[in-house]
Amino acid sequence: MAYLEKLFNPTSVAVIGASRTPGKIGYAIVNNIISSGYHGNLYPINPREEEILGKRCYKKVSEVPEVVDLAVLSVPVSLVLEVAKECGRTGIRNLVVITAGFKEVGKEGAALEEELNQIVKEYKMRMLGPNCLGLMDTYTPINASFSANSPLKGEIAFLSQSGALCASILDWSLQKGLGFSKFVSLGNKADLNEADFIADAAEDPYSRVIVGYIESVVEGERFVQVARKASLKKPIILIKSGTSKAGAQAASSHTGALAGSDQAYETAFKQSGILRARSMEELFNLAIAFATQPIPKGDRVAIVTNSGGPGIIATDNVEHQDLKMARFTKETVDNLRKNLPLEANVYNPVDVIGDADERRYAFALNTVLADPGVDSVLVLLTPTATLDPLKVAGVIIDIRKNFPDKPVVTAFMGGTKVVEAAERLSRSNIPCFPFPEPAIGSLAGLVRYNQHRLEAKEEREYSFLGEKRRVADIFREVRDLDRVVLLGSEGAEVLAHYGITVAPTSLAVTPEQAATFAEEVGYPVVLKVASPKILHKTDVGGVKLNLNSSGEVERAFVDILDNVHHYLGNVQICGIEVQKMVPRGRELIIGMKRDVQFGPLLMFGLGGIYVNLLKDVSFRLAQGLTQREIERMIRETKAFTLLKGFRGDAPADVKSVVETIGQVAQLVRDFPEITELDINPLLAYEKGVSALDVKITIAS
Amino acid sequence: MAYLEKLFNPTSVAVIGASRTPGKIGYAIVNNIISSGYHGNLYPINPREEEILGKRCYKKVSEVPEVVDLAVLSVPVSLVLEVAKECGRTGIRNLVVITAGFKEVGKEGAALEEELNQIVKEYKMRMLGPNCLGLMDTYTPINASFSANSPLKGEIAFLSQSGALCASILDWSLQKGLGFSKFVSLGNKADLNEADFIADAAEDPYSRVIVGYIESVVEGERFVQVARKASLKKPIILIKSGTSKAGAQAASSHTGALAGSDQAYETAFKQSGILRARSMEELFNLAIAFATQPIPKGDRVAIVTNSGGPGIIATDNVEHQDLKMARFTKETVDNLRKNLPLEANVYNPVDVIGDADERRYAFALNTVLADPGVDSVLVLLTPTATLDPLKVAGVIIDIRKNFPDKPVVTAFMGGTKVVEAAERLSRSNIPCFPFPEPAIGSLAGLVRYNQHRLEAKEEREYSFLGEKRRVADIFREVRDLDRVVLLGSEGAEVLAHYGITVAPTSLAVTPEQAATFAEEVGYPVVLKVASPKILHKTDVGGVKLNLNSSGEVERAFVDILDNVHHYLGNVQICGIEVQKMVPRGRELIIGMKRDVQFGPLLMFGLGGIYVNLLKDVSFRLAQGLTQREIERMIRETKAFTLLKGFRGDAPADVKSVVETIGQVAQLVRDFPEITELDINPLLAYEKGVSALDVKITIAS
Repeated sequence: MAYLEKLFNPTSVAVIGASRTPGKIGYAIVNNIISSGYHGNLYPINPREEEILGKRCYKKVSEVPEVVDLAVLSVPVSLVLEVAKECGRTGIRNLVVITAGFKEVGKEGAALEEELNQIVKEYKMRMLGPNCLGLMDTYTPINASFSANSPLKGEIAFLSQSGALCASILDWSLQKGLGFSKFVSLGNKADLNEADFIADAAEDPYSRVIVGYIESVVEGERFVQVARKASLKKPIILIKSGTSKAGAQAASSHTGALAGSDQAYETAFKQSGILRARSMEELFNLAIAFATQPIPKGDRVAIVTNSGGPGIIATDNVEHQDLKMARFTKETVDNLRKNLPLEANVYNPVDVIGDADERRYAFALNTVLADPGVDSVLVLLTPTATLDPLKVAGVIIDIRKNFPDKPVVTAFMGGTKVVEAAERLSRSNIPCFPFPEPAIGSLAGLVRYNQHRLEAKEEREYSFLGEKRRVADIFREVRDLDRVVLLGSEGAEVLAHYGITVAPTSLAVTPEQAATFAEEVGYPVVLKVASPKILHKTDVGGVKLNLNSSGEVERAFVDILDNVHHYLGNVQICGIEVQKMVPRGRELIIGMKRDVQFGPLLMFGLGGIYVNLLKDVSFRLAQGLTQREIERMIRETKAFTLLKGFRGDAPADVKSVVETIGQVAQLVRDFPEITELDINPLLAYEKGVSALDVKITIAS
Repeated sequence: MAYLEKLFNPTSVAVIGASRTPGKIGYAIVNNIISSGYHGNLYPINPREEEILGKRCYKKVSEVPEVVDLAVLSVPVSLVLEVAKECGRTGIRNLVVITAGFKEVGKEGAALEEELNQIVKEYKMRMLGPNCLGLMDTYTPINASFSANSPLKGEIAFLSQSGALCASILDWSLQKGLGFSKFVSLGNKADLNEADFIADAAEDPYSRVIVGYIESVVEGERFVQVARKASLKKPIILIKSGTSKAGAQAASSHTGALAGSDQAYETAFKQSGILRARSMEELFNLAIAFATQPIPKGDRVAIVTNSGGPGIIATDNVEHQDLKMARFTKETVDNLRKNLPLEANVYNPVDVIGDADERRYAFALNTVLADPGVDSVLVLLTPTATLDPLKVAGVIIDIRKNFPDKPVVTAFMGGTKVVEAAERLSRSNIPCFPFPEPAIGSLAGLVRYNQHRLEAKEEREYSFLGEKRRVADIFREVRDLDRVVLLGSEGAEVLAHYGITVAPTSLAVTPEQAATFAEEVGYPVVLKVASPKILHKTDVGGVKLNLNSSGEVERAFVDILDNVHHYLGNVQICGIEVQKMVPRGRELIIGMKRDVQFGPLLMFGLGGIYVNLLKDVSFRLAQGLTQREIERMIRETKAFTLLKGFRGDAPADVKSVVETIGQVAQLVRDFPEITELDINPLLAYEKGVSALDVKITIAS
């Protein structure tokens, strides 16, 4: 049983605020439930009516002779709380609150919504809305909404945070003949949100693909968990808007500066296997492809065309979309050559040339579909005098039945001459596009999902047992000193407690301490002024490199203090950091910025002073981060090319880099008070790594 | 008079190979000319007929009572040469050769095409084709093609290298109500090619935008010259296919490796102001926008919507497309606030909310169009109960008349409920899209063209008077020595002759010579083995750095020879290069690869050993390269950020970098025998630059 079974498939429904007056929302809901063919018991509730649309009307939901599975509320906003309470007392477990006037109208509404949610929780109810269009399920069937249209039956579970978009899409889908299993207007998402409906649709036997429009995610970490699991079962395609608002909060770290406001969503979608559509059009092209086509076994595409130009365009797009042009077997090539005209191209793309009829198309399509090296097929058609597009559509529909495991999509390019054929194809579950590019784009979506499903296993999070208590002590000390930014030596200590190799670093408050530490760790060492107030240490003479004796160290200590006071007067100084100079390695950066929705967002890439210039970075959420994902995160960057051994260099120790990222992930999961973290550079060697500079900021 | 006036607007036409038999090409052409309403004299030519479609038929074109302006040839391929000669002798100046069987069928056909072209040249004729559909001009009017459809009258000049695509697009355009001024099937482009038709359409008063599909460009440099000039007058939008074939030729330079096979086209289009469409759909969205909308003055977009979600999607896209959301004046905001409901959003995007009718739309649209801070407007609509989309279309059509200088595009989202309104808008020259993204995309195209037109002036090529003869001498010497790759010292000399500052470099064949040169230029110096056979000099001990005295230099000389012979045996060595060590600067690369179509293609970007890793490069054709373009080329890279002064560095001498690129451009224009060139690194200082390593390859 799916998670929200009783919401979508209730045995009985009450519509509270039902109306006899056409044009009113309370009328539309009752009317939609009836005309959608709902089989269960329907109870309109209105204290002033005896009967609505042939159904006996009740004054209160508590007077209904049974405890209904679902109550749809369309009462004035001032009555919603009271009615919700009554539902709860009556034992009703599922609410759809249509009524608007909550969070979307401001502060007062938000308070009201909070109260409503309290009532829902108190009575252990679940609620869709408030401020929504309602929901539909074409298999129950039920249309518990005030939408002007009802969807066709199909295999797409659709959810939308915008009610207006629901109306548009329903209208559009009727024209295109596109069907839905479920159709949900999310409204304000006070209780049930996208995560719930994705979890539900994942279990729903009638939903083959989950498609949605969202503007935000309510519970980031849960959303990722749910989507990650669901995407192993069926594809999830979302469009996420609101990406343009440039991150307003000032960023004090490299990671903060490089992770734009949309980065966390982008990462969360990628990491949970959600296909992110870049446009409404792509959303629906993908939805149609997933709802009608099998998932292909691989990325090898064959193209059958009756003209060169469109064939070239399609071939270009195969490469642009990271797909491969199938290479035919000798048998296929021979067979095509024997049976197609001399001028035909028997290699991929197969050109059956301008005078082809439907039989020639049939032969070519059959032959390439039978080739074991072909995973999916695109059929292109341009109108010619010798061709009846409708007949070509017919043979495509017939032939694809013999190859149920291979997706077939089409692009019939033209106007009046192909419109009927295109409709026939669509009705027979073969997507037909007006141009080659979206056809290849939809195949690419199928292939990408297949790759995700093959690669993503339910894997365990990479974990590490850090010295939690020791780190907590450091943070407490820092806070006690009224600081939020850790000194380099403190940061190094934190990392060390989580197993990360750091260049030996210590804080000295006297020249003698500095020299003692230097003697301990060995020369050469570097001295750096330690002060939360000084950002550019070099500029104020706050750094001395290559010190080779205790004498040099003591002298440098004094010099640095002199320099800093010369430039900055009586600036606050915590001491001087002494760090053993380690050999040069490949410079990397590992960073973290805490996202308000999705928690810690990790960054990896080329490090050093040019990190903000080169912007060679990749991101992952720390939550649920697996070793495989860390490896993928590294591979996405140019830094990986460097690590593998660029220009004849020996390969660096990638395994240690993976471990370090995993350890940082554990650290930031264990300590929600870490708001930002930068290790830059992390030096990678042929064996091992060494964290050179670390900056950790904690919440005050 | 436009360049190809007599081809598109002939006073008289002969159709050679005319036929009485419907279904034959020779029939279709005569029929199309007649039914297109052609006013001039039409002479069908067929030795076996007296009359065709009511027109008197002639046996030969030489028997026609006048010298026709245009002859359309649809005779068997075996007769084409003879007929073309006859046309030439008769004094005919324009041919359209429909007949196929030339270059497209292989070697023999290519030879035939070459002969045909010779005849065309001999008689000073111009020819479209062979192997084409023909041409159409809706203002003449004439349809001199065998297409099954005739285009609607409009302002788009269309050219296509694919005949099948012509047929598809015509069929499609009739369904969409899209009109054309000219419609040309380019065929094999033996004589007239895309450059000719672009030049012609640029002068044509009836063509407002030039749109085309091409697979290749015949005369690269002329194409760029023509398009550059034409694009100042009217927009050119092209889709170029065949981008996927990975460059097959092995590349021996960084520039060769980084400039993919499509890079020269990409660069040529950019540099000549051509808007390159990424898909067929984008091609036509842009075509429609340019054919119907004024060019906006700036990039500030206002959005009027009746629902939030689509407004957010559109706002996202404004940013993604590098446009700006208009900021309204106080007056506009006050006016909107006074007249719209309380819940409406009076800032951009203006949300007239769900219960809006056409009057509310009218008010909002009028108000934002009147705002001086608004350059263009997108109207979004989702169907609601209170709204008649057709009436909204009506008010948009009315209002936009009062603002003829501001583009207005629309996205009416829905199906049956909006279809009529969308058609009405399209018929009234207001583009209506099904989703917000293509609407914003089309505005972005208009804005981009406006920016191009504002920035691109008919500017002079950046030129430099190099010591041509001295460089020619060096190349001759290198060739005499049977080499194609110049030694570093030779390359440095070449650059120096073109005014480029190089680190002093000389070739020494004895230790004493090396020491003498070092004494001359001053210490420290570096010694490098000079051999065309040794690629990785460091790996074989072929480099010695930081030499500070004549003794060290002499010793290093001997050491290098020993090392190299130890590693590589009796490898060919030309001597040892002595180079003065120059201070470290910001590392850049300037490179050149000669493109077979477009000539020398320059590259600029971050240099050093990581150039292939970082891939931070931009490209320009050397041909016609202006100072402004060089500056733009630099600004496109991250290297520019470095030059400006990154992390508090002082700015580097960008002016000298510009000069150096200009000097390299002149050098590679002056010497077509230079096939590849890399300066890596070019060091940029606060004052001046210095070329450190240069590799020049010349044709053998």
